[in-house]
This record gives sequence, structure tokens and C-alpha cells, in this order.
Amino acid sequence: MSSLDEYFKCLSDRERAIFEGAISMGALFHQFTGTPVNQDTLESLKAAIESSIRLQPSIEDVKVEIHLDYDENEFGYVSLEGRMLDVKITSRFKNVKAIIRMKYIDELKYPLIYVESVKEE
Amino acid sequence: MSSLDEYFKCLSDRERAIFEGAISMGALFHQFTGTPVNQDTLESLKAAIESSIRLQPSIEDVKVEIHLDYDENEFGYVSLEGRMLDVKITSRFKNVKAIIRMKYIDELKYPLIYVESVKEE
Amino acid sequence: MSSLDEYFKCLSDRERAIFEGAISMGALFHQFTGTPVNQDTLESLKAAIESSIRLQPSIEDVKVEIHLDYDENEFGYVSLEGRMLDVKITSRFKNVKAIIRMKYIDELKYPLIYVESVKEE
Amino acid sequence: MSSLDEYFKCLSDRERAIFEGAISMGALFHQFTGTPVNQDTLESLKAAIESSIRLQPSIEDVKVEIHLDYDENEFGYVSLEGRMLDVKITSRFKNVKAIIRMKYIDELKYPLIYVESVKEE
Repeated sequence: MSSLDEYFKCLSDRERAIFEGAISMGALFHQFTGTPVNQDTLESLKAAIESSIRLQPSIEDVKVEIHLDYDENEFGYVSLEGRMLDVKITSRFKNVKAIIRMKYIDELKYPLIYVESVKEE
Repeated sequence: MSSLDEYFKCLSDRERAIFEGAISMGALFHQFTGTPVNQDTLESLKAAIESSIRLQPSIEDVKVEIHLDYDENEFGYVSLEGRMLDVKITSRFKNVKAIIRMKYIDELKYPLIYVESVKEE
Repeated sequence: MSSLDEYFKCLSDRERAIFEGAISMGALFHQFTGTPVNQDTLESLKAAIESSIRLQPSIEDVKVEIHLDYDENEFGYVSLEGRMLDVKITSRFKNVKAIIRMKYIDELKYPLIYVESVKEE
Repeated sequence: MSSLDEYFKCLSDRERAIFEGAISMGALFHQFTGTPVNQDTLESLKAAIESSIRLQPSIEDVKVEIHLDYDENEFGYVSLEGRMLDVKITSRFKNVKAIIRMKYIDELKYPLIYVESVKEE
């Protein structure tokens, strides 16, 4: 057992996949909300969010959509908010793959972070 | 089943406690690192971190220690970094309590987020 | 002339006061937006914002108001957004005092950072 | 006079250029420090920082260098810190161009934000 495994010995492989994906989704929200963005810079921001969060432990893939349906203001950009984000993070630990999602839920008025699926492969 | 439970139906109570604690630890790191801090403002910053993160779903308690063992500079403060933080988040879902920890591990040169315990009560 | 003055030799005292206040207002917005907050944690968050930003060079005073006129959601808190903030930062360089303000301007649909006054004392 | 000019009537054109550049530098530091980064994601992060900050009022150009001279850890990435950044922001108001710089100054042990030049063109 490597020294790192020592810190996670109370987790199953399935729990570890869920754990690592959840950390990264909390990180993504709080790192990038507030960033100035408009249609011209959308792709560049998405690329940076995806590639930076993919560096974190056990993260296999990150897909970000940003919905810029904002009121026009005279400055031509907005600050990124949680309600604009639709994100899918795929985390893997050994043969377990978890898909963690963040999406604004109208009914809840809240950018909910939840679990789409957890599967052994 | 409430509409919220629908989003977590693939998780056990134990997995849900781990999930919510992990989100909040990722959030804490990326929200507050960068904040100017010194000995005079330490208590105020700790109080704000603890009370804000405690608002998140399923979070029962948050304890933050900040180690300000920095090189003195002539400005008298530093930016909060992950390596200065020692945090314990207690999350609960139904009768399962998870203790999530973030701590700088010298051997790893990394502020590791890991799980101290998960217990049914 | 100290080594620090060397970096600001192209600025008048008046310009230096404006410069330092503006840096701190940009810092405040991008450091703290995203923080979970509700009526119970408002005072703690305001205190931490005020005391941490006051550490920055040439900052004499910081006053933060947070307007929590948000739609209720079932989670009982929101993420701090620029439009909720009303902030006054007083910066001073030698005998010049600048008052920098951030406030959401309805007409502009934008949390504007502007200058209320710059005075020699 | 537009309604926006009203908010800046106590500033000269020169002071306005300095003011807007300073806000954006404070914003850049506090928005992006903490982001996971390594050599593979460096260009993507630089591009996103440059394009997002360029959206802010009066910003004409942004150039970011990131010095990744960090201790290797087993995770293969680090969190972006102020001491790794070397940034040049060019702000313009009417015919005045200000160059604002952030750079880690060894002698000060501090990522200093200062003014390189302010010129009428």
C-alpha cells in the first residue's frame, strides 16, 4: 500500500471515485465564478476550466457548458455565475467511474451538484 | 421521495455524506485561498470561512486552523495558501457522519484532501 | 527614496492613492464573490472582508454592505454576487485620501467601481 | 456627458487610465490564483486570463507569464500563486495609456503591483 492509500483506507473504490469527483466540482464552482466572460471569450474560458480541473486526482474528463443568456449591459460582458454553468465531471478510481454533474435547477433556484451515475466497468 | 432525493438516488446514505463533505472542502480551498491575512485578522477570517461553509447542504461542522509560518515581508501580511490550511469538515446524511480533512502533507508536498472517518451513529 | 518608491516614481501622491484603492476594490470583488452567505452569516463575512482588505497597502478603511434581497431557495443561502455588494474603500497616500466605491447601478445593470472623492487633507 | 462619465468626474484622463488598470490587476490576481496548472495547461490558462481580463473597461491589452519553477510533487501540478505571475496590463482612457505590472520582487518577498509607465499619445 502506497503512503497515499493510507489516507483513504476507509473508502471503497466506489466511494473514492465519488469523493474525488465531488472535490473537483466544488473547486470548479468556487475557482471560476466571477470571471469576466462574453461570447467572444467563452471557448477560451471553457478550455481553461476543463484542462485545469482535469489535472486534479482521479479526474478523467471535464465538460463545461456556459449559458450566457444575460441581460445586455453597456459593458458587453458579465461575471460568470453558478446559474450559467452546466458541467459534467467524470472521475475514475480503479474500475469505478462516477459522473458528477452541476446544473441550475429552476424548480430549486439553485445550481445543484449531484451524481448522474456510478458504474463498475 | 422529494424532488431533491431524485438527484441522488444512485448514492447510499454513506456515499451521500462523503459526497457533500467533499464538495464543501473543494469549495473552501478555491473560495478562500488568495485572501490577505496576518495574525490580527486570523480569527475573523477563520470565523467567516467556518460559518459560510457550514451553510452548504449536509455540513454539520467546520473547523479551520491557519498556520501563518511565513517569511516576514515589509507589507505585514500574506495571501492565504493551501499549505497554510488545516481543515476538518463534518458532514452528515441521515445517520452517517463523515469527517473530511485537508492538511498539507510534507512528504507529498501537497495540501491533501482525505477522509478521516465515516461512521454510522 | 526607499526601494519601494522606485516602482511608483511616475505617479503623483494623488495618483498613488487612487491606484492602491482601485487594486483593493478589484481584489475584493474577485476574492469574495461566490462565498455562501445568508442573514445569519452576513456580519461574519462583512467583518472578514473588511479586515482582510484593510491589510493591503495604503488602505485606511473598508466598509461593506451586502444586500441579500434574493429569491428564497430551499437551501437557505446564496452565493455572494457583485450586484449584492455596496463597498466603500478609503485609501490614503501621504496627505491624499481617495474614496473608491463599488455599487450596483440599475441603469447600467452593472456593479460599477468608481471614485467618490479624492482630497488633499 | 454620458451617465457613466458622471461617476468619474473627479478624475483626469490620466487618473482614469491608472484607475481602470489597477482594478483589473487586483481582479486578475484574486480571480485566478488557486487554479490548478502545469506545463501542459499553461497556454490554455494564460489565454483564458488574458481574454477575460481584456473584457474589463478601458483594458487594451493583457500579457501573462507564469513561472512554474515549483517543487515536483507526485500529483504533477500546482495551484497558481501570485509569486508565479508576471503580468502586464495596458489600460487606455482617451489618449492616455498606462502600463500596470505585477511581478514577484525577491527583495520584497511580495508580488508587487506597480506602474511601469503612463503616457499621452
